Amino acid sequence: MTDVLTPTTAREPKTDRYPTRGTAEVTTPRQDPVVWSVPGAPGPIEAPELQGFERNGFLTVDQLITPDEVVLYRAELDRLINDPGVRADERSIIEPKSQDVRSVFEVHRMSEIFAQLVRDPRVVGRARQILGSDVYVHQSRINVKPGFGASGFYWHSDFETWHAEDGLASMRTVSVSIALTENLATNGGLMIMPGSHKEFLGCAGETPRDNYRQSLQMQGAGTPSDAALTRISEEHGIKLFTGNAGSATWFDCNCMHGSGDNITPYPRSNVFIVFNSVENAAVAPFAAPVPRPDFIGARDFTPVK
Amino acid sequence: MTDVLTPTTAREPKTDRYPTRGTAEVTTPRQDPVVWSVPGAPGPIEAPELQGFERNGFLTVDQLITPDEVVLYRAELDRLINDPGVRADERSIIEPKSQDVRSVFEVHRMSEIFAQLVRDPRVVGRARQILGSDVYVHQSRINVKPGFGASGFYWHSDFETWHAEDGLASMRTVSVSIALTENLATNGGLMIMPGSHKEFLGCAGETPRDNYRQSLQMQGAGTPSDAALTRISEEHGIKLFTGNAGSATWFDCNCMHGSGDNITPYPRSNVFIVFNSVENAAVAPFAAPVPRPDFIGARDFTPVK
Repeated sequence: MTDVLTPTTAREPKTDRYPTRGTAEVTTPRQDPVVWSVPGAPGPIEAPELQGFERNGFLTVDQLITPDEVVLYRAELDRLINDPGVRADERSIIEPKSQDVRSVFEVHRMSEIFAQLVRDPRVVGRARQILGSDVYVHQSRINVKPGFGASGFYWHSDFETWHAEDGLASMRTVSVSIALTENLATNGGLMIMPGSHKEFLGCAGETPRDNYRQSLQMQGAGTPSDAALTRISEEHGIKLFTGNAGSATWFDCNCMHGSGDNITPYPRSNVFIVFNSVENAAVAPFAAPVPRPDFIGARDFTPVK
Repeated sequence: MTDVLTPTTAREPKTDRYPTRGTAEVTTPRQDPVVWSVPGAPGPIEAPELQGFERNGFLTVDQLITPDEVVLYRAELDRLINDPGVRADERSIIEPKSQDVRSVFEVHRMSEIFAQLVRDPRVVGRARQILGSDVYVHQSRINVKPGFGASGFYWHSDFETWHAEDGLASMRTVSVSIALTENLATNGGLMIMPGSHKEFLGCAGETPRDNYRQSLQMQGAGTPSDAALTRISEEHGIKLFTGNAGSATWFDCNCMHGSGDNITPYPRSNVFIVFNSVENAAVAPFAAPVPRPDFIGARDFTPVK
């Protein structure tokens, strides 16, 4: 692990193809492909699915990991969130209301079990196929939404943040959320506006220093306006994802997505991995005074092998 | 309208069949019928539907009011929530986050249009059939959940509050929620634990004076424990209601129910009417120092005609 917080690549401001955090909200058409591999390139994703990903910005896998593996990963998740050392780690995010651990970042470095999951061909193979190159982990985390009132995440595009605050220049990044509990219609599941990934919504407002400390708990800079959300949802609708434990949702870095709160007693846990192309390694942040810490936006670009 | 805030009927403490707000959470089997009319009594509800109501604690009507009527009532709702006089009225509840009007109480007294809706045979007829007697309005309100992060309501039984704070002795009360916008799976719709109405969950904790001012915005006294919610949801599951504008959900006063927040841009508005049997007119509160104001728990028991 290299621990370099300074950008590794010099950059001219004029190369910013996705302006954001200015004085006004501004939309830019997507400048990058969604699927980067050449048509017919080998990989675990079938052609029609890959076309659906290009069109909608997501694809779902009903059973990415087996029920036995779900048991394994859930036990590892429980071990981590109940470990006082992990709880005290800066990489753990605490739910303001209940004071429970809500997320733990960089689990692929903290846990050999999650490191194996990242290297699994069913996982990294799909990422390579979508991004058309070797990939590294830009971010990994486990999320726990324990129910009884756990908060959701307001609407956002991940790329907006990764571009502004982490310095990802191009939309060549993909996320996978692997469900470790059942995702019901009632327990605050992921919602995506399908097709929204083809337009970049640059948000209004300057990024405060240390924005990430706030924004992991509730959104500040990088939040779309009500008017933009109304327009985008009218154009694309909203899809709520449900599925069994072991199912997975792959989604493009620029999907407009969010989730509601969870008042049910049914917890919602998942492991979340963000793969970035090695050809899109992070540079200086495009709209923030300093990059976010390594555990949120990696500066070690070693490919997953 | 009589404006009597003192109880109209004397009562011995020992007549409390549904203890609540004591030192511990305590469950009591339901002591009252769910459907009070004699089998085969005339009314708009068919026998199988009425049996479903008895069993589940709710019944839905796909189109209780016509699309034209939806337009009429929605216009009246908009008129009310945008009227500065109504906003300033103590009967209006303001959303803490957005400062928008979230609910307006006693709309059947404030608006002749909503008064007509209450008297409509499709509405009051069903209430009479379920409760087996003449009925009066214990509470009426319009609710607006404007989206973009509007809060939900945590799990509760209405009867728990109406018994503790308003003095309803028996479970002879029914609510109808008439949708004025589409209820989607994503915009914070009503959730009910079907069958939960057959058990009364007495909640722990004394009722603070003026509890209603807080509890209309967020729940305090009268909140079930995590353990109770886990047990009841394991036994009964959770049903999320969706439906078009004009659809309606009738539900028993003792259903365990709640709703999540609404981050979508799709507002969720409804009109909500609580009918109580004239034979169950409010007495002194069973577990509160003083009754809540008239506009929340009526003290005028004039039957709807």
